[in-house]
Amino acid sequence: MRRPSESPARVDNDRRLTPVVIIGSGPAGLLLGHLLRAQGIECLIIERQTRDYVQNRIRAGVLETTTTDLLHRLGLDARLNAEGMVEHGFNLATDDRMIRIDLAALTGRNVTVYGQTEVTRDLIAAAPERGLEIVFEARNVAIHDIDGDTPSVSWTQDGVSHHVHCAFVAGCDGFHGPARAAIGEGPTFERAYPFGWLGILADVPPCHPELIYANTQDGFALASMRSPVRSRYYIQVPLTDRLEDWPEARVWDELDRRFAPLADHAVTRGPALQLSIAPLRSYVFETMRRGRLFLAGDAAHIVPPTGAKGLNLAASDVSYLADALIAAISRGDTVGIDGYQARALTRIWKAERFSWYLTKLMHRFPEDGAFEHRMQVAELDYVAESGAMQTAIAENYVGLPL
Amino acid sequence: MRRPSESPARVDNDRRLTPVVIIGSGPAGLLLGHLLRAQGIECLIIERQTRDYVQNRIRAGVLETTTTDLLHRLGLDARLNAEGMVEHGFNLATDDRMIRIDLAALTGRNVTVYGQTEVTRDLIAAAPERGLEIVFEARNVAIHDIDGDTPSVSWTQDGVSHHVHCAFVAGCDGFHGPARAAIGEGPTFERAYPFGWLGILADVPPCHPELIYANTQDGFALASMRSPVRSRYYIQVPLTDRLEDWPEARVWDELDRRFAPLADHAVTRGPALQLSIAPLRSYVFETMRRGRLFLAGDAAHIVPPTGAKGLNLAASDVSYLADALIAAISRGDTVGIDGYQARALTRIWKAERFSWYLTKLMHRFPEDGAFEHRMQVAELDYVAESGAMQTAIAENYVGLPL
Repeated sequence: MRRPSESPARVDNDRRLTPVVIIGSGPAGLLLGHLLRAQGIECLIIERQTRDYVQNRIRAGVLETTTTDLLHRLGLDARLNAEGMVEHGFNLATDDRMIRIDLAALTGRNVTVYGQTEVTRDLIAAAPERGLEIVFEARNVAIHDIDGDTPSVSWTQDGVSHHVHCAFVAGCDGFHGPARAAIGEGPTFERAYPFGWLGILADVPPCHPELIYANTQDGFALASMRSPVRSRYYIQVPLTDRLEDWPEARVWDELDRRFAPLADHAVTRGPALQLSIAPLRSYVFETMRRGRLFLAGDAAHIVPPTGAKGLNLAASDVSYLADALIAAISRGDTVGIDGYQARALTRIWKAERFSWYLTKLMHRFPEDGAFEHRMQVAELDYVAESGAMQTAIAENYVGLPL
Repeated sequence: MRRPSESPARVDNDRRLTPVVIIGSGPAGLLLGHLLRAQGIECLIIERQTRDYVQNRIRAGVLETTTTDLLHRLGLDARLNAEGMVEHGFNLATDDRMIRIDLAALTGRNVTVYGQTEVTRDLIAAAPERGLEIVFEARNVAIHDIDGDTPSVSWTQDGVSHHVHCAFVAGCDGFHGPARAAIGEGPTFERAYPFGWLGILADVPPCHPELIYANTQDGFALASMRSPVRSRYYIQVPLTDRLEDWPEARVWDELDRRFAPLADHAVTRGPALQLSIAPLRSYVFETMRRGRLFLAGDAAHIVPPTGAKGLNLAASDVSYLADALIAAISRGDTVGIDGYQARALTRIWKAERFSWYLTKLMHRFPEDGAFEHRMQVAELDYVAESGAMQTAIAENYVGLPL
C-alpha cells in the first residue's frame, strides 16, 4: 500500500490554472459556479458530501425575486417556472386573527415557493452541460496561501490526494466548513435564541394557500409549503426538547390546534418525510475576505429562519462576488473584490435585522414578562392598521434591493 | 382648637350636586375640566399641590396635533398660536450622522413645541372665566362609594373638612395619586429600564432647530427645546448616578461632545433652571374604570419620555372621557362610559409600543452585547433608506388618529 504522500496526485500542473476554486456545492457555491461559467470563467467546485446527500437535504423554500432573477438570468429556470408557486402575500397571525401582508399590492413584487432542494438539483443537473465541474466526496479539504498570489486547495478522494492552484478561492462551505477558519480571527457578532424549531415535512396539501407565521399562546408556529402537495410546518419548542418527545401524532395534534382557527383548510396529516429540531441563531463574521479567499452565504453569516432570508442572502452574496471575480479575472479590475465585503455586509445586516425583528415579534421568549408580550400584541395591532408598517415588512420580506 | 370632625365642612348639601369631580390639576384634569365646561357641565377640580407648584413644574414639551386640536377647539390657544414652535421634522442620529424624519412630507402633519408648563398656565388662567373651579392645596383627598350611584370625594383644606357628592369621579391625579388605589387590584403591565435621563433646562437658544434623538457611543442624548430661547437637553445616565455626580459644567461638556458633530450650532451654555435625574418606566394599569370612577393620563399609564407621548396620551384619554361623560350626563347615554376603557387602551398600547420601540432603538442597554448594538445600527441604516419605515415612525410621532 502506498502512503498518501506517494499517491498519484491531482495537481494543477495537470491542467491550466483554475481561476476560481469554490468550496461547497450548496446553493451559494452552485450559483457562483454557474454565474462564473456564464461568463466563460473556469471554476471547480469541491464538495465534502455525496451528490445524493447534497441533492436531498431539506432546507429553505421561499425565494426572493433577487434570487429567482439570478436563476432566470442563468436560464436555469425551466422547472422553477413550471413548479414554483408565486406567492403574492403572507400572513402574520395570533391565536385567532390573521394579518395579511399583501406583497404584490405593497411592493409590486412577490416571492416564490420552490425548495432549496429543487434549486440544488437544478443547478447540479445543469452543471455538466455548462462545463461546471463538481468534485463530490472530497475529504480533508484544506485552503493554502490565501495571502499570496497563488492560493491553492487540497483534498483527498478515495485515498488519492489532489491539490489545485488557483487565482481565487470562494468559501461557500457553510457554517462548519474550513473557509472561515482559514481566515482566522475576525469581528464576530452572535445571538442564540432560547428555543428551537421543530420541523415536519410531509407530502400533504398545505392548510393555507399562503404562509402563516403565528404567535400563539403556546409559542410560534409556521404553516409553510414546498409545493401544492408538500407541506412544511414548524413549531417553537424549548431547546431541551428532543425528537423522542415529539411522536408524529403529537406534532400533528399541535399543528391542528394552532392552525384550525386560522387556516382555510384543516391540517392534513401524512407520514413525515423529515422531522427535525433546529436551534435558532443570528451570526455574522465580518471578515468576508482575506487575501484571495472570499466567504459567501452561511460560511459568513447565519440568520434565524423566520422570514426565510438565509438562502436569499447566500444568493445576493454570490451575485456580488460573481460580479467582483468576473471583473478581476476578465479585466484585471479589482475594485469589485476590494469592495465585496462592504457591499455584502450592508445587505447582510439588513437581513439580519429583519430576521431578528420577525423572530422577536413572533416567538414567545421564556425570559419575557407580560409587558413584553403586550408589546408584541401592540406591534401586531399596529401592523394590522398601518399601511406604512405593512409596507416596511413587505419590502423586507420580498428582499431589499441588491 | 376644634377637632377636625367638628370643622365646618364643605358639603355638597351646600350646593347642587356636582356632576364631575376631577382629582388633579395637571394637563389631564385641566383639559377634562375645560372640555366639560365647554358643554356647560359643572365640575370641580381638586388639587393636592399649590397653584404655584402646579404652574411651575417642568414636564414635557412636544404636542401632537391631537393635543393642539383640543386647545384650538376650546379657544384656549392664543399663547400656543403666538409662541408655539411648529416643528415639521425631527432627527434620529448616531455619533456622526443624522436621519431627518420629515413629518410634514411623510404625514401632512407636524408637532408643536410648547411646554406642558405653559399649557397648564393657560388652562389655569382661563378657568375662572369658564366657570371651572379648582381647589388647590387639598389634603387627604379620598374617594368614596365609587360602586354606588352617588360617589363622593373628601379632602381637608386649612384644617377644614370638605365632602362633595357627585355623579362621576375622574382620576387625573398621576402615578402616585389616590384614584388608581381606589380601584384596587387590576391587570398591571410594567417595565423598568436600566438607566435614567439626566435633564437640564436653561434659557439658551437650542443647538438645532429640530429635536435630535442621538444614540451615541456613550449612550442616548436628546437635544430639545421649549422655545427659541429655552433649551431642554437630556443624557442617558446609569440609575446609580446622583445629581452631585453631574455639576453643570460636566453636563454641558457632555452635551457639547455629543452634539457638536450633529447640530447646526454649538451647544450654548447657561445657568440651569432645572437639573434632574428621572428613571424611565413603561406602565399600564388596565382597569381604567370602576363604577363611577375613571382614570386618565399618568394615573393609569406611564411611558418612557422617548417620543414625548406622555402628555399627548393624557390628552387623548380625556378627549375620550369628556365625550363619554358628556353623553352620560347630558343625554343619559352610557355607551361612551362603558366603552371608555377599551377605546383608551387601544391608543395607550400603541403609544406604549412606540415609546418602548424608540427607547430600545436609541439607548445603550447595559445588558446588550455587540449583536444587539449592531441591530440598532442596522435598524437606523434601514430607517435612513426606507420611506415606508420613516412613514411608520412619523405617523407615530405626530400621533396616531384618535
